[in-house]
Amino acid sequence: MTTCDRSFVVADPRFFAKAKGPFSAAVLADIAKAKVVPRKDGGIEPAGGYVGIAPIQAASMRDVSFLDNRRYLSLLDQTQAGLVIVESDFIKRVPSHCVALVTSDPYLAWSRVARLFYPSSAVIPGVHATASVASTALIDPSAQIEAFAVIGDNVEVGAGCFIGAHTIIGAGVRLGQACRIGSHVSMSYALVGNRVTVSHGSRIGQDGFGFALGPVSFETMPHLGRVILEDDVEIGANSTIDRGSVNDTIIGAGSRIDNLVQIGHNVQMGRCCIVVSQAGISGSTVLEDYVTVAAQAGLVGHIRIGNKVRVGAQCGVMSDVEAGQDVIGSPAMPVREFFRNVAVLRKLSKKWSKLVRGSSDLI
Amino acid sequence: MTTCDRSFVVADPRFFAKAKGPFSAAVLADIAKAKVVPRKDGGIEPAGGYVGIAPIQAASMRDVSFLDNRRYLSLLDQTQAGLVIVESDFIKRVPSHCVALVTSDPYLAWSRVARLFYPSSAVIPGVHATASVASTALIDPSAQIEAFAVIGDNVEVGAGCFIGAHTIIGAGVRLGQACRIGSHVSMSYALVGNRVTVSHGSRIGQDGFGFALGPVSFETMPHLGRVILEDDVEIGANSTIDRGSVNDTIIGAGSRIDNLVQIGHNVQMGRCCIVVSQAGISGSTVLEDYVTVAAQAGLVGHIRIGNKVRVGAQCGVMSDVEAGQDVIGSPAMPVREFFRNVAVLRKLSKKWSKLVRGSSDLI
Amino acid sequence: MTTCDRSFVVADPRFFAKAKGPFSAAVLADIAKAKVVPRKDGGIEPAGGYVGIAPIQAASMRDVSFLDNRRYLSLLDQTQAGLVIVESDFIKRVPSHCVALVTSDPYLAWSRVARLFYPSSAVIPGVHATASVASTALIDPSAQIEAFAVIGDNVEVGAGCFIGAHTIIGAGVRLGQACRIGSHVSMSYALVGNRVTVSHGSRIGQDGFGFALGPVSFETMPHLGRVILEDDVEIGANSTIDRGSVNDTIIGAGSRIDNLVQIGHNVQMGRCCIVVSQAGISGSTVLEDYVTVAAQAGLVGHIRIGNKVRVGAQCGVMSDVEAGQDVIGSPAMPVREFFRNVAVLRKLSKKWSKLVRGSSDLI
Repeated sequence: MTTCDRSFVVADPRFFAKAKGPFSAAVLADIAKAKVVPRKDGGIEPAGGYVGIAPIQAASMRDVSFLDNRRYLSLLDQTQAGLVIVESDFIKRVPSHCVALVTSDPYLAWSRVARLFYPSSAVIPGVHATASVASTALIDPSAQIEAFAVIGDNVEVGAGCFIGAHTIIGAGVRLGQACRIGSHVSMSYALVGNRVTVSHGSRIGQDGFGFALGPVSFETMPHLGRVILEDDVEIGANSTIDRGSVNDTIIGAGSRIDNLVQIGHNVQMGRCCIVVSQAGISGSTVLEDYVTVAAQAGLVGHIRIGNKVRVGAQCGVMSDVEAGQDVIGSPAMPVREFFRNVAVLRKLSKKWSKLVRGSSDLI
Repeated sequence: MTTCDRSFVVADPRFFAKAKGPFSAAVLADIAKAKVVPRKDGGIEPAGGYVGIAPIQAASMRDVSFLDNRRYLSLLDQTQAGLVIVESDFIKRVPSHCVALVTSDPYLAWSRVARLFYPSSAVIPGVHATASVASTALIDPSAQIEAFAVIGDNVEVGAGCFIGAHTIIGAGVRLGQACRIGSHVSMSYALVGNRVTVSHGSRIGQDGFGFALGPVSFETMPHLGRVILEDDVEIGANSTIDRGSVNDTIIGAGSRIDNLVQIGHNVQMGRCCIVVSQAGISGSTVLEDYVTVAAQAGLVGHIRIGNKVRVGAQCGVMSDVEAGQDVIGSPAMPVREFFRNVAVLRKLSKKWSKLVRGSSDLI
Repeated sequence: MTTCDRSFVVADPRFFAKAKGPFSAAVLADIAKAKVVPRKDGGIEPAGGYVGIAPIQAASMRDVSFLDNRRYLSLLDQTQAGLVIVESDFIKRVPSHCVALVTSDPYLAWSRVARLFYPSSAVIPGVHATASVASTALIDPSAQIEAFAVIGDNVEVGAGCFIGAHTIIGAGVRLGQACRIGSHVSMSYALVGNRVTVSHGSRIGQDGFGFALGPVSFETMPHLGRVILEDDVEIGANSTIDRGSVNDTIIGAGSRIDNLVQIGHNVQMGRCCIVVSQAGISGSTVLEDYVTVAAQAGLVGHIRIGNKVRVGAQCGVMSDVEAGQDVIGSPAMPVREFFRNVAVLRKLSKKWSKLVRGSSDLI
């Protein structure tokens, strides 16, 4: 007997509620804003409709699936799915026994269909008996507070919020409506908007890394700012967002931050920025709107990154980047230049012995 | 008085139980699968046997020590240890008053000898009075559950498991036998094999970083998969392993993951992979068996890394890597090519003024 | 209504106690070791003195502010602050209505002035009713232990210590005086000096990443060492410091470690080192005194970094670095060489077609 059998189960009932539905092709097309292309026999759905979702290689005739990555096209050829969500380029690869939902954005469509079958779990109002809630805290009666949570003085928790087990909401923190704060979170000195999500173990609002070298030792800079998480911000697991020193640290509305990300004191991010896992943004740097920072990238402090800039993975950004640029490399440079450099160096390296005399001692 | 005196103490009795033993050279040789080379006077052990272990520079005549790193050979010359575990190359450096245990793998031998003197601490069955355990959870009576742990509905905890203080095991999670889960861990949507170890503060099973850009904002992708940790997996501290979106995230049997590592949704790792601290593996990437990913390396999503590939520290892997290759650099390339590039660029940089006219404006 | 209005408030009274003061220019100059330069009308302070601090763009005539970054000099021209702390170079940019405090180290002066207005919050002696404290633990009556903390057997907590909520201090750990341990910290196998600070969610003292490849699987190396945090060490949030395998892991007096930093087993750091966010130091590496390791840098194991070395951001250090050097790049090289290489490669890449025949197939 093993407890970790990897046999595949869609939405394992150990963990997920039964799928909603069934749904007709018309309902799916409507929510997905997609066009229905019938199967060869003209049908558009199995009797009784679609009952669930599944990955392309595991789906059966009553399931919906999707494909948006060219790498996996051969899986599409072989799929047993009843319906697949694809973009128009892929339609000729959809098997004849399979309905297609065609859209210019299959991933968005898939996300909505999946959410239709599996809506977010509901918040169950109430404060767990073991939670420690200050008498001065204002908890909306529709909020849920789990075991061993600690809610400090004068905290405000809005309607429909969920606060996970072992999470600490420090004195004075204010949470808007429908926030979902995971377990083991430390949150302090923070003002939080509506529909903000923070995953397990993230640290929001602690002192930043600020100190001066005094005559005998380092002297700590007091941190008198806050963290502001605007509406619809989502933050992953085990990330750290330091509060401001004298200004605030601000995460703009709709921004998404992944796991193990570091955001330094006084950073200001605009709307709908994306910061991927293990990236770090140093103190006082400004991101305008729709900036993407890929995994493991690092930005020095006190720089400005323009609208819609995309910073590549492992990139090291040491100065301002103008709006619309794509940069990569350490130090950062335009993507085109980076890959040209890589190619040139590879060529040079191979041709080295022809280029330079006396190179026999090279390696 | 100071509380942090750094005077060296082997296995400080404040923290560790007294060493087992004493043990004879024959017992040590047997467990270490090593050959005993007597000291110059022909003896192989002190009267009464060996009583403990110690680092090479601190060991005395009743202690066992080891050396496997050429950098520290001068310490071997001066050691007072009674017995040292070494490979055959080092034997001529072993002092004449010192017994040698010779093996082709001194580190493995040392690991076993150390474990002989200091076995793992026993699990003490019982559930701490402050733990919050769902009535539907099945806890084996031989398991230990520490203070303030939270065990959700329908959780199964196998024989001999240890669950640390402040750890949360979410509804439906199944743990096999003899697992050791540290403190402050969040584990959810997970199926866990036997003898799995997770260190403090790791996050297993939360939502991955998946969302689509909708017409007005990002729309979150539901995550309906699981995390599967197969037998003998070990995970370090403060690492994050996201559950699958529709497939599962799988960590293959015997794999070892260090601290602060990020494993994205749907990643599938084979047997006995190693992922070192601060490395990150993006979503849906596949590692075959015996893959090593060194510290701070990053792998993009949707790629395949073949058997026994070794990915170097800080490497950035952007495409598939064939079995058996060693890669390094960002972007990743064969190790030999990387160091040739480094050397060529250094040479070129020095010779630049001779190579190209008009370079006076260079720096 | 929004709960996350970003309107700026200095030291938001939701979170911070009212400022001390008011203070005269003379008091400020004394604590800042700075020289007072009166405003144009000869005055040095408003009636009643200075009442608070504020960032340069938000300060009013009764506030103190500072500027030490040339990037923001235009803000100085427009400031309404009553007094600004600056270095002598900037004095001609200080508006005529504004007093200057001139010093060679404005950041240090600012830190002291800010601390004068906003001293650290006091520790409030007592053990929270929900904390789980072993009967054999010695807790100084002046210490504060917060909710759900777990204090193990034979722990010693010195005078004036603060232990945050949900923090676990493992059996045998010794804390000196006036330590501040945040929330959700796991600390075990550790000896801690005086005035040591650890922020939320850091993991101190767990097993390191050590194992040998045995005939059938990896075999774990027992970790029998400790972690020693000397006086005045500060550690950020969600960092991980593994205990030694047979030696100790030592963080030298006065050192500062940022968030999400990894320190491997047996690392020994000297006095007043700085390790910035997301950097990692592998096992058994030695840092001498006053070493700085910038963000996301990585050091391999078993190397020695000399006094006052500065390791640049994202640097990959693979061998010893001599005292006083500044290195950057992966692999690490002297800073001057790194930037020359970057410049040379850029030039070569642009001039490639002129340098090498037959390069038309390059990109």
